[in-house]
This record gives sequence, structure tokens and C-alpha cells, in this order.
Amino acid sequence: MSQFNSLSRADTGLAEFLRYENVAWFEDGVVKILDRRVFPTETRYVTCKTVEEVKNAIKDMVTQSGGVKLAAFQALRLQAHLIGGAKDATAIASLRKAANIVANARPTTAPQMERMLGVIVDKIEECEDGVPLAVATDNAVLAAMNKRYEDFRVIAGHIVDALPNRPRILTHCFAELLLGFVLLLAKERGLSPELICTETRPYLQGARFTATVGMQTGVPVTLITDGMPGAMMTAGKIDAFITAADVITMDGFVANKVGTYQIATLAKRHGVPYYVGGFPSGAHSSGNDIVVEQRNPDEVLMVLGQRVALAGVNGYYPAFDVTPAELVTAISTVEGLKRPDELMIKKEAN
Amino acid sequence: MSQFNSLSRADTGLAEFLRYENVAWFEDGVVKILDRRVFPTETRYVTCKTVEEVKNAIKDMVTQSGGVKLAAFQALRLQAHLIGGAKDATAIASLRKAANIVANARPTTAPQMERMLGVIVDKIEECEDGVPLAVATDNAVLAAMNKRYEDFRVIAGHIVDALPNRPRILTHCFAELLLGFVLLLAKERGLSPELICTETRPYLQGARFTATVGMQTGVPVTLITDGMPGAMMTAGKIDAFITAADVITMDGFVANKVGTYQIATLAKRHGVPYYVGGFPSGAHSSGNDIVVEQRNPDEVLMVLGQRVALAGVNGYYPAFDVTPAELVTAISTVEGLKRPDELMIKKEAN
Repeated sequence: MSQFNSLSRADTGLAEFLRYENVAWFEDGVVKILDRRVFPTETRYVTCKTVEEVKNAIKDMVTQSGGVKLAAFQALRLQAHLIGGAKDATAIASLRKAANIVANARPTTAPQMERMLGVIVDKIEECEDGVPLAVATDNAVLAAMNKRYEDFRVIAGHIVDALPNRPRILTHCFAELLLGFVLLLAKERGLSPELICTETRPYLQGARFTATVGMQTGVPVTLITDGMPGAMMTAGKIDAFITAADVITMDGFVANKVGTYQIATLAKRHGVPYYVGGFPSGAHSSGNDIVVEQRNPDEVLMVLGQRVALAGVNGYYPAFDVTPAELVTAISTVEGLKRPDELMIKKEAN
Repeated sequence: MSQFNSLSRADTGLAEFLRYENVAWFEDGVVKILDRRVFPTETRYVTCKTVEEVKNAIKDMVTQSGGVKLAAFQALRLQAHLIGGAKDATAIASLRKAANIVANARPTTAPQMERMLGVIVDKIEECEDGVPLAVATDNAVLAAMNKRYEDFRVIAGHIVDALPNRPRILTHCFAELLLGFVLLLAKERGLSPELICTETRPYLQGARFTATVGMQTGVPVTLITDGMPGAMMTAGKIDAFITAADVITMDGFVANKVGTYQIATLAKRHGVPYYVGGFPSGAHSSGNDIVVEQRNPDEVLMVLGQRVALAGVNGYYPAFDVTPAELVTAISTVEGLKRPDELMIKKEAN
């Protein structure tokens, strides 16, 4: 039997919005993905019956940030259940193909996603013969998910160690598990954190997801536009800037939602520390290896689905920007806080 | 007779959106102000029958940027027509009171607006006795408006002198007459300018007004979110950053739409020149004299009138930020381009 039924929906102590089943979940033969394009105004799920549908959902921004990883995990479970039967070489080959499809939904994170999903399929392949493929896959995915949660608790803990009392934490876009654990642990340790989040246009992840996690954690939340971090730092209202990362390169460069680089520049100017939490990517030895995804420029011309600029106006939409190592105070990994130039000492593949 | 009927609607050569009657206009006993809260999705006018109504329209963002000055000018005409009769001491006192009311609609620009409107009332007071008040006011206002257009043509010209061929000009919020003349003169001189505008949340002035002026001037326009100027500079896609200013202090500090300071910081880092055009304020001797207007924080929680964040999330909305002189390459005044530290040499009251 799969371990899932008994373990899956345990309360992690995190914001409700971050629980497995509220992000992406395989159940009743389909992957259900919370549609973040409309949350929290509406709570509805996109249902995927094939791995290709999961890939397209990721590409179309049904989910993003860490939700992409969780959706990709569920795609492996979906594929294993579709194949059925016992674990054999053909089944493993089919799983590897599925992993490759979802890993490449978006180019910037593709190299790291390929490795991460590859490790899970390796685990399934290593199971003893005769185990049902679906059970082996459920178990391997569950282990990876639980490890991911536990790792982020550790990574967040190192950052919280560095925070002052009553920290006013600025973040950009949606740092998902990192954000959830930073707020939870800071609260548990009696630090009384406050959260300031940029709205993060064009998708408003900050207004919609980050602010929601803050509210569900019971932390005071202040929302600002993407033009205001500098004004808030000038006013002395920010103690730390914290983000997750889409890619952390081995030389300490950080690819994250476009706009991060600007805030990191301002943080440096104002003496505000910038902490990044996540897994340095063995697939990216330097900042030059980062491929920045260019998304449909029309997305910038729309606000909540309504066109705001005259016909003929062009858009430009790099999904991410790259913050050079010199602007990063520390990168929090499972081993602890590291200066950007210390990552090379131990290359981690994730 | 007023000179207005024959002269008012002359084509200045500027974008149609910048012509007097498309911004704010006194006619048929009322001031009509283009409602920029909905333009260009809708073109409609707010009608003001009293000076107090003009003040409230400014406060409520019916118009902004240079539109505030034009609306204030029309409020003087409205008041003069309401009073009627010949120019006398009582009428002048009433005009001064009206000037004071509209000047104080918004705090950051109030000191400079008081001076600017005071100069116009002085001109009216200096008219020979017996001239109808309405005629004297129409003429004084017309002269001030025409001078303002001519001054911005000169100020813009100095900036255009400093631009390279095919300049890719980044701007923030809506620089109105300065923007219109920079684009027009750059085109006239065969420079083939391109315009990149930030959307400028929460009101989207960039997406709605700046992009419109670019399109109406026949210049290629690219719209970006407020988080992207840094990414565009990293990509080498910006040659100059140009803004107007709500206040230019005599020590070269610049108050402008919140977000300007961030871009100025990035411009300095990337070696992109930042040019500010306008009238240094004799009412502000230093950056410390700037009062930053705090607007209703709920405005940040709304996007196109729709609430996007959960109930309980707070907003923060400083309307402007202050860019220190060290980040400003040059301030263009009617006398020419000046380094920020050169303004003190001649104090201008405007």
C-alpha cells in the first residue's frame, strides 16, 4: 500500500495555502492544481489527466514558484498510475520521459528540475523488483516532498537565526515554503515579525499569495507596489530583504522574479541584508549559465485580464532577473548561511 | 475681449492628449477636467462649478502631473467669471483665496503652486483699472499657459541636446509637457527616439498616459512593469532616464512619483544618465523641505477598482519619493542643463 493515504494531509503547521492539497495533488486518477491565476479572489482547481497537461498548466502559470515542483511530483505519480503494473525497465523509461516533459515546462529552472526529478526516478528504479510501480512512485514522491518541507524548515531557520527582534521583512514575489517557515519559526521564537510584500506585477503574486501566507500565519502584512521598496528603505522601515530563488548558481548569483535585482541593489545601498534561501544548482556553475525565460509581452499590457495601454504599445516581459553575488548578503542552504563565494566549496546537485 | 477664443485651441504640435482642451478647460461657465482615472479606456470629463470642486478633483486624482497646474489655472478663470464685473481690490482678494484653495489640494507641490498662482494674480492686479476681471484673468492665465508650454519646449530642448542618436528613453510615471516636447524635438531633429515607460502602479499613469503620448507622437513605445527597469538596464536597453519632477529643490533633490528614486539608483549603477526637467522651486531650499504626501493606503490594495489582497492586509502609499542630488546627472531648466549643485547660483521662484 502507498503511504500516502495516512501521511499526506498532515498539518505541517504552515499556512493553509501551503499544504500539499492546496497547491497540487494527485487524487482519483488526476492531478488537481490550484489555479493561482485567480486565487484568492476565486478558489478553483485545474484538472490534468496527462503529464502533458501538467506541463501546459505550469507553462500557463496555473501554478508557479514551489508549486511547479509539487505539480511535477504529482505528474510522476499520475504517470505511474497510468502505466500501472509492476516496476520494470519499460515503466522506468516511461517515467523518465514524463519527468523530462514536466521539467522543461519553463526554461530557466529546467536544468535543475531535470536533476531533481531524475533523482526521484532513480529511487524508484532502485526499489526491489515486483513492487507495484504506483506504490514505488507514491513512496518516492512522498519522501521527496517531505524532505523538501524539512529542508526548507532548516533553511528558513538559518535565516531566522540572523534576524533581529521585531524584524520588518521585505520580500518580492512568492517565496512559498521558505516564506512560510521563516514567518512560522520567527513567530515560534517570539520575534514578532512583520511582512512587507511587493505586489509583483504582472501576476500580482505578492498581493495574492505572499500576503495570504502572511495573513494565515497571523503576521501583520503590508502590501506595496513594485516601485516602493526604495521609499520604504529610505524611511527606515525595512530590516531584511528575503527571497527564494528560481536558480542559485554555484558562484552565488541569484535568478528570481524580475524586480529582485532592483531591490537587492537598494538593499545594498541602504545597508539592509539580503538573504536568499534554497538549493544551489549544480547545473549552473555561474550566472552566465542562467537562461532567462522571456514570456509573452502581452502579459504586461494586461491588468487582471483587462488591456490598459493603447493598441500598438509593445510589452517586454523577462520573467526573471539575475542578481549578482556582490549584492547577496548570504545564501541559506541546508548546511547553514553561506557567503555567495562559499558555495563552490561543496557543489550540491539539486 | 478675452484673447482666448482666437488663440486657445491652436495646435502646439504636441500629442493630442497634451492640448489644453484635452487636459482641463474653462468653458460655458464650468471647468471640464479629463478624467485620467479612466482614460484611455474611457474618455470622459469631470465638470466643476466651483473652485472647491476643482480642488477636490485634483485631490481625487481626476487629473495629476501637469494637469494639476492647468486645472488650477482654469479655476482662476472660473472664479473670475463667477465674480464678474471690473477688477477691484475685493475681486483680487477673492482670486487670491481661490488660488490658495487649489494650490493646497495636495501637500507636496503646495508651496510651489502657491507661488505660481500668486504670480498670475499679481499680473491681474497690475492690469489697468476698469478692465473686466474675467478678461484680465483670461489674458493672464493664457499668458502663463503659453509661457509654460514655451518653457517646456526650451527645457526639453536642452535634454535632447544631450541625447545620442536613436535614444532609448526610459521614463517613470507621466512627464507630460516635458515628455511630449522631448519626443517631438528628438523626432524633429532626426534622432529616432524610442520610449520605454514603466506602468507606474497604483494608477498606471505610464501604461495609460505616457504610452498614449508616445503613440500619438509616432514613437515606438515599450511598456514594462515597475520591477523591470533594472533588468532592462542589465540588458543594455536603456540610454537615458528622463523624468519631470513634482519638486526640484535648490540643492538638487527631486521629488517625483514614488519609484523614481529606485530607477535613479539603478541608472547610476549602470552609467545611464538621469535628466530631470522643470523649474527649481524657490520654496524648497533643500531636500529636507519636501513634504511627501501619504495617500490612502487602500489605493495600493486595489487594481483597476478591484480588491486583490485578502481582508486584513494593510497598504502603504507614499505618493512620491525623494531622489538625492548625487543620483541626478543634470537638471534641465529654461537656462540650460545644470548639475544639481549649480542650482543655488540663481534661485528661481516658480
